[in-house]
Amino acid sequence: MSGIRLVGVLGGMGPAATVDFYGKLVEETAATCDQGHVPVVIWGDPRVPDRSLSLLGGGEDPTPYLRRGVEALKQAGCEVLAVPCNTAHAFVPRLAEEAGLELVSIIEVTAEALAADGVRAAGVLATSGTLHAGLYANALRRYGVAAIEPDEPGQRRVMAAIGAVKSGGVRPAHRRALEEVARSLADRGAERIVTACTELVLAMDGSHVPVPVLDPARLLARRVAGMALGAALTG
Amino acid sequence: MSGIRLVGVLGGMGPAATVDFYGKLVEETAATCDQGHVPVVIWGDPRVPDRSLSLLGGGEDPTPYLRRGVEALKQAGCEVLAVPCNTAHAFVPRLAEEAGLELVSIIEVTAEALAADGVRAAGVLATSGTLHAGLYANALRRYGVAAIEPDEPGQRRVMAAIGAVKSGGVRPAHRRALEEVARSLADRGAERIVTACTELVLAMDGSHVPVPVLDPARLLARRVAGMALGAALTG
Repeated sequence: MSGIRLVGVLGGMGPAATVDFYGKLVEETAATCDQGHVPVVIWGDPRVPDRSLSLLGGGEDPTPYLRRGVEALKQAGCEVLAVPCNTAHAFVPRLAEEAGLELVSIIEVTAEALAADGVRAAGVLATSGTLHAGLYANALRRYGVAAIEPDEPGQRRVMAAIGAVKSGGVRPAHRRALEEVARSLADRGAERIVTACTELVLAMDGSHVPVPVLDPARLLARRVAGMALGAALTG
Repeated sequence: MSGIRLVGVLGGMGPAATVDFYGKLVEETAATCDQGHVPVVIWGDPRVPDRSLSLLGGGEDPTPYLRRGVEALKQAGCEVLAVPCNTAHAFVPRLAEEAGLELVSIIEVTAEALAADGVRAAGVLATSGTLHAGLYANALRRYGVAAIEPDEPGQRRVMAAIGAVKSGGVRPAHRRALEEVARSLADRGAERIVTACTELVLAMDGSHVPVPVLDPARLLARRVAGMALGAALTG
């Protein structure tokens, strides 16, 4: 069992997205019995104040809640940190560093994947907080990829769909709205659509979008599974 | 936020079953935003030695692994303990008591639900370890419910299906086998079929079984959601 690293998941933001991420982590692990899977500890506190509201200047700072989670994961023996909430990445790099945990950034993993595919422009569907903080725009720029974001009415439709997932009330109209916004980004030159909010993955079917849809949660799961088990598998 | 109790989930046995349980916990919570959901910490260590093998006398004792998880959950501030692995209930009541955590037993919750429905005989699909330890037979007897178990060839088919879920390789033949075993229990007088192994739920479609199929994982999720949020909702 040496070489296996305990993965901490700072989740609950929202809980359905964390369930989805955990499921992907299991799927992305080539195990034939329980014992071959990635050991994880999930801190799933959904009471963290809204990350997007805080970034837009209108809400409580989530930092103390996030710090409590990071510290609990460190305390539990985790070495690697994964956060299946894109917006929270405006806060967590500093907290991971404080705690001495290795953060696998969902945003970096996605930017790398886009660059590795030779993509030069990607459409970003994300919370208004993620866009306002420039999380994807800045990361993608470092990899030579342009970020194409929805216009204001489009962004309102994206936020409505995210809210619908969080309230458990996604309707066909939300799915259609996301597809229309995604198509408009493709029309403006996006070679990929990035569902850069872990809730959006649960409300979007890529089959009606003319370019491939990239799921950062799956990319993160794949990377984390490799990191956690890699040393054990190879050594 | 006072009155909300942090729920510890001792999971990873197997991981896909824990994902399923976490999803049901989210579904069974009537929340309209992230912040209304149940705060959980999931200890998901899939390296716990096989519970069933140990109970049948042929495998390593999982107790030290389970104790480590229970202690980590206690340390993280959990008050309530849920374990989405039926077989592990041969070990966890003592560990929960040691740690001062309130265990919500998946087996007790199921026995109560059967009795509340006036059921007098229930078919139990479970691991050989769960059956050998008499976990359901004893609990159901206390509620006046008879447990009907598969015969030996049937039990081999149940174990094959559980193994298929754990290895990610469920095939239609496994589903058909489970349905046939379930039907044979109904023929012998079972008024309900209890999928008393959290992996079985992932391999069984109740629509071809002549009596209702009861999912202990969902009953546990519902009870835990009520306990965690109950005080906050009512007080």
